[in-house]
Amino acid sequence: MGEHTVSSFDEELEHIDRLIRDMGDLSGAMTRASTNALLESDNALAQRVISDDTIMDAKQRELDERAITLIAKRQPMAQDLRSVVGAIRMASDLERIGDLAKNIAKRVGAVGQGATPRSLAHSIDAMASLVLQQVNGVVEHYVRRNPEALVHLRDEDEKIDIQYTSVFRELLTYMMEDPRNITSCTHLLFCAKNLERIGDHVTNIAENAYYVMTGSQLPVQRPKLDETQVTAEAGS
Amino acid sequence: MGEHTVSSFDEELEHIDRLIRDMGDLSGAMTRASTNALLESDNALAQRVISDDTIMDAKQRELDERAITLIAKRQPMAQDLRSVVGAIRMASDLERIGDLAKNIAKRVGAVGQGATPRSLAHSIDAMASLVLQQVNGVVEHYVRRNPEALVHLRDEDEKIDIQYTSVFRELLTYMMEDPRNITSCTHLLFCAKNLERIGDHVTNIAENAYYVMTGSQLPVQRPKLDETQVTAEAGS
Repeated sequence: MGEHTVSSFDEELEHIDRLIRDMGDLSGAMTRASTNALLESDNALAQRVISDDTIMDAKQRELDERAITLIAKRQPMAQDLRSVVGAIRMASDLERIGDLAKNIAKRVGAVGQGATPRSLAHSIDAMASLVLQQVNGVVEHYVRRNPEALVHLRDEDEKIDIQYTSVFRELLTYMMEDPRNITSCTHLLFCAKNLERIGDHVTNIAENAYYVMTGSQLPVQRPKLDETQVTAEAGS
Repeated sequence: MGEHTVSSFDEELEHIDRLIRDMGDLSGAMTRASTNALLESDNALAQRVISDDTIMDAKQRELDERAITLIAKRQPMAQDLRSVVGAIRMASDLERIGDLAKNIAKRVGAVGQGATPRSLAHSIDAMASLVLQQVNGVVEHYVRRNPEALVHLRDEDEKIDIQYTSVFRELLTYMMEDPRNITSCTHLLFCAKNLERIGDHVTNIAENAYYVMTGSQLPVQRPKLDETQVTAEAGS
């Protein structure tokens, strides 16, 4: 951590925002690359995602240190304090997105080559595209200070949940059809769950970004849909 | 949030520590109750865990607000700043443990009654006991300021990972034996994964607690074991 006493509060905050944008770009890239690696059995690409995660961790540490130093040295009040604390929280969610993408990448070997039926690969790919759109969108709306767009974006998370429940059911079907699919399908199940969880972190980021900009909470969210309602009766 | 200007820094920090201990107790109780609810198909208990999670969230918000106010008002340096920031991070991990326990509780209905073979229930129960020991231990060692115990505790996480990989394989076997087990077993798979992730959060807490107490990092950890190495070949 260097000395930042000569720079202004706003300059410091801009630097922190730049780190948020970098982390956002990286988390989007890792999400896309890990899914591509999974669907194309690309082990080299998977390795790149795994090593990208150390860059993500380093960025978060840098952001945390800068933010805490800024709070301690400048004692910001109200809006300014909200911005710095909000940045710490957003960075924490972005770092978790990196972790989840890394976890998808780590499963590339276990899923194995040619194991994913085409229609399933298509569903997972579509889900990843939705997720990527959300990751890129939330950072964009934060950087451009567009709270209205965040309300809309948060509501879009429902599409990911619907897509996820559908992938969950599709995976159950493949497992029931042929027991030889079970191992690779369980890994795909975790990958799909990770994509859904990336969507949840985007929701957290949207809520924090909205609070930073407006000082109030995003309107209460719909009850969350997920696969915990799919039972043996319903699934068969 | 009230006015704390008259209380000393140490009094404020003690209050924050009390919140950490409360959250630790609650996360242990939620972990145990959610697993019991799962293995005994106890829907009422599952509901209690789900509603406990709102208490957990409220505690974290309170801790966050107190900690940030403390940093802004008192501008603590070095050791003191480390303690406050460490508390924020530990609270974030404890809150995630609550989320994971809630997610286990939400699956109680989907797994269904009498669906879990006895030997599998035993393995999951044993895993939960290990996890619970870790959750309780890490908060205890933090409260008693015992960094040496944290080194040992962190290394114990490996036992959870070994147990988890074994549960993972056992679940694959049940799914392969009879396709009618697949839906409930996938939910159990997520539950076991959640227990394993609770162990990871304990590791994070141990690392933060150690840093708060000593100012240095825990010695580098062993490479993490997980089920991503279980392939279709190995699994069959």
